[in-house]
Amino acid sequence: MTKTLDFYFDFYSPYGYLAHYKIDDIAERYGYQAQWHAILLGPAFKAVGSKPLLDIPMMGAYSAHDFARTARLDGVPFVMPATFPGATLAAGRAFYWLQDQDPALAKRFAKAVFKAAFAEGQDLLQVANIKAIASAEGIDAQALEAAIQTEAVKERFKTAVQASLAKGVFGSPFVMVEGEHFWGNDRIPQVEQWLARGGW
Amino acid sequence: MTKTLDFYFDFYSPYGYLAHYKIDDIAERYGYQAQWHAILLGPAFKAVGSKPLLDIPMMGAYSAHDFARTARLDGVPFVMPATFPGATLAAGRAFYWLQDQDPALAKRFAKAVFKAAFAEGQDLLQVANIKAIASAEGIDAQALEAAIQTEAVKERFKTAVQASLAKGVFGSPFVMVEGEHFWGNDRIPQVEQWLARGGW
Repeated sequence: MTKTLDFYFDFYSPYGYLAHYKIDDIAERYGYQAQWHAILLGPAFKAVGSKPLLDIPMMGAYSAHDFARTARLDGVPFVMPATFPGATLAAGRAFYWLQDQDPALAKRFAKAVFKAAFAEGQDLLQVANIKAIASAEGIDAQALEAAIQTEAVKERFKTAVQASLAKGVFGSPFVMVEGEHFWGNDRIPQVEQWLARGGW
Repeated sequence: MTKTLDFYFDFYSPYGYLAHYKIDDIAERYGYQAQWHAILLGPAFKAVGSKPLLDIPMMGAYSAHDFARTARLDGVPFVMPATFPGATLAAGRAFYWLQDQDPALAKRFAKAVFKAAFAEGQDLLQVANIKAIASAEGIDAQALEAAIQTEAVKERFKTAVQASLAKGVFGSPFVMVEGEHFWGNDRIPQVEQWLARGGW
């Protein structure tokens, strides 16, 4: 049986975006499958008494520079989305609506959403953009729009966010493997070491 | 002429401790010399509206685990100091008092202070401990104790802390090289890449 690791991310997290390029490859290299979980950083910031990096004195300017510098080192495109930060509700709801039907499709959609935001600078808060991203992945955009307005799908995402907090997820990206927690794109190399060695 | 990089740290910073083992080797490998700067995280936390990691909900427990886990991966000892956090005034003042006389000795002293705190768990807030660490490095502990009580030496450290904030240092460890800022032990691999490639 394939072992699982859990990958938590906010669609508007620059470091989540950087990590999303790597996590599946690393997992598969060591016989794991990455289970993706969309979350919202807003409730996590509230839980730890923090706020979006760019809104923090000194750290904000540093972070903006660091996002782009790290992306260049990784060899991936990077721009800031048209609106930022924000609660990526439509994307998160759509992700779980898809995951409950077809997990592989949900993951492809999530990758497309990340690229729309941070490779193309799209505004994820516009439902029209989420629909267009979905359409390009062969998803019925009208059905998606209808679904994410239902209480059931709203509740699905809300429950997932609450469950992540209950498990100790306070940032993005955040990886859990065999009870071990790793926070941040910076910890992806440690995640890889952990999988390779079975801990240390 | 040897090129210089600047290495800022708080003596009570676990990630500063982890970085201190590596920074000189990395600098020297690429023809740089690391200039060490003791700072205090208290004023930096105030500037960015943060507080000691261990005092933050969720993040505190994670960080305590992460300090030790990262130290194990690096193959270095790690314990928490007897008192923590705290303003390492005596160690910082002693560091600059020594630096103004003998920069190489100041660096040896700083390394001994870090090891006393995080390899042995010593309480750096006790001046007696700072004196004992100094003595073991061949420093006149009575002269040190007298010096760190003078206004001139107190002011020297205070000015250094203020200067670090003015330059944008908001955490520990923090590295500056040719105007490029790198925050955190996590960024030491990027510092090395930067030195090796001359940027990217």
